[in-house]
Amino acid sequence: MNIRENLLQMFKQAGGEFISGEEISRRLGVSRTAIWKHIEEFREEGYVFEAVRRSGYRLVFAPDVMIAEEIKVGLSTRVLGQKIYYYPSIDSTQNKCQELAKEGAPEGTLVVADQQTEGKGRLGRVWHSPPGANISMSLLLRPALELQKCPQLTLLTAVAVVETLHEFCGISAQIKWPNDILINGKKVCGILTELNAESDRIHSLIVGIGLNVNTLPEHFPEDVHGIATSLRIEKGEPLRRVPLLQQILTRLEELYDLYLAKGFAPVKKRWETYAVTIGKKVTIRTLQGSLSGYAEGIDESGVLLVRREDGSVTKVYSADVEIHG
Amino acid sequence: MNIRENLLQMFKQAGGEFISGEEISRRLGVSRTAIWKHIEEFREEGYVFEAVRRSGYRLVFAPDVMIAEEIKVGLSTRVLGQKIYYYPSIDSTQNKCQELAKEGAPEGTLVVADQQTEGKGRLGRVWHSPPGANISMSLLLRPALELQKCPQLTLLTAVAVVETLHEFCGISAQIKWPNDILINGKKVCGILTELNAESDRIHSLIVGIGLNVNTLPEHFPEDVHGIATSLRIEKGEPLRRVPLLQQILTRLEELYDLYLAKGFAPVKKRWETYAVTIGKKVTIRTLQGSLSGYAEGIDESGVLLVRREDGSVTKVYSADVEIHG
Repeated sequence: MNIRENLLQMFKQAGGEFISGEEISRRLGVSRTAIWKHIEEFREEGYVFEAVRRSGYRLVFAPDVMIAEEIKVGLSTRVLGQKIYYYPSIDSTQNKCQELAKEGAPEGTLVVADQQTEGKGRLGRVWHSPPGANISMSLLLRPALELQKCPQLTLLTAVAVVETLHEFCGISAQIKWPNDILINGKKVCGILTELNAESDRIHSLIVGIGLNVNTLPEHFPEDVHGIATSLRIEKGEPLRRVPLLQQILTRLEELYDLYLAKGFAPVKKRWETYAVTIGKKVTIRTLQGSLSGYAEGIDESGVLLVRREDGSVTKVYSADVEIHG
Repeated sequence: MNIRENLLQMFKQAGGEFISGEEISRRLGVSRTAIWKHIEEFREEGYVFEAVRRSGYRLVFAPDVMIAEEIKVGLSTRVLGQKIYYYPSIDSTQNKCQELAKEGAPEGTLVVADQQTEGKGRLGRVWHSPPGANISMSLLLRPALELQKCPQLTLLTAVAVVETLHEFCGISAQIKWPNDILINGKKVCGILTELNAESDRIHSLIVGIGLNVNTLPEHFPEDVHGIATSLRIEKGEPLRRVPLLQQILTRLEELYDLYLAKGFAPVKKRWETYAVTIGKKVTIRTLQGSLSGYAEGIDESGVLLVRREDGSVTKVYSADVEIHG
């Protein structure tokens, strides 16, 4: 951890109590002037400190801002989020993470933004992310996997988000194949997986998560009214993004390790228990056209299996799915 | 075609005969000064023109330089190579083509270089390309295909190169799975396929071809002596690169169209007739370790099938293959 992280951790562990300048300076091995400078920086980011002569400083309020230090303090992961890039506003966390990947950034590198001006959705669509309300994150993975297995990681990510939502705020979300996360039928989270690869080796895999946390109905643009929701709308109260993000990273790492060790089977089982698509009559729209049938399940590679009228089974790799009850 | 291309075409069609300034100026609708300027440019690139008062100009010699105009004139493709970027020297045609892809370059965009300073091979290896001797090219494709099918395009490209070599200079080359092209057991060409994609859609596919055309034995670095060769070494005479490149593009487009229309089956058949790997005892080295067995063939997705001692068949996605007679 760097000095800013250590400093923030000290104040959080002190639980609102005063810490003297001498003690901080001794424990971090930096001058009191340096400490004062760091505290001023934190104040600019919205942190509130009380300073009292002879007693020192105490942390009165920490804002829900997803800066690296705030995420790092209390983060229990081994790899994911060990390197964090935070931006108040950025065109797209996916694009930034792609750049970092090209420059050789390590597995687990996290790009997170308070606002995206050109957030990317699946199949070249737009993902709306108004300032201050949501989690827009992109995570760099470098699995030694064949191309063929990449779709499995989109499904794995969906499982991690659904299980985190349940643990974190008791919400039971569903997964709509391949990568939409719904609450009461409305979309609360989108997942976009992009990759750079050779025909026989993945170079880098960028997992993007756009999660509507504190969005209010009026935040949503016209075109998604009635089909989008947020955790705040569903819970009726705002939620802190940082602990939620930390928990997503922790659960994602746990599932990713399980996947690398045991393969897709155990993840697939969990995915199926959350999947709202499976066992339903569906209409599938693909680049090649549309078809209707019964969504039987997914195969070992994460492909959707749709049984047609004539009994034949069609493999669906990429599509928009409309569910008919 | 632009003016430079039209001008070059006129001179080539004239077959060494004189064309008057008036005629050129009339047919191309540009001033005689402009024509003179263009001819001077061509001279700087190694073209030799004879200029005689009242008769005009005639093309005496055209160098074997892979500039866009030289490739375009007489190129019969519909899509491939319709947009060409030529560089006397560049770090890597793959990297440049990746950039162009990100900027939205159209399918068929070709990046070709006379020399690569950081030529890329498969699995992060180096590809040697000394100045002036070889063809270093990267082609941008944008097929509406699932990720899973990408390896098929590496095999398709190998077929196109082998068939071109046979047509162009009567050489019978073999393919060593997945992407080495050999003449008498020595490597003459390497193919590298890279892609950018979503988990369910290919954004861009960069097909790189490094072909040793006029390399002489002394050109090869120590580490590839005895295992690398060139067309010149095998034929005992130098070859012109431009017509060879044009023929590769033509054959590649023909196979690509066939593939998009009829799928991998017809390409697979042709690949198998050139494959030196199939039906041999092989040792496979993968990221996970090495194994020995009998190379039975490739499956529908281009994966190598290796039958083990115990009769089981292992699917090989990525590996170095050593062939034991």
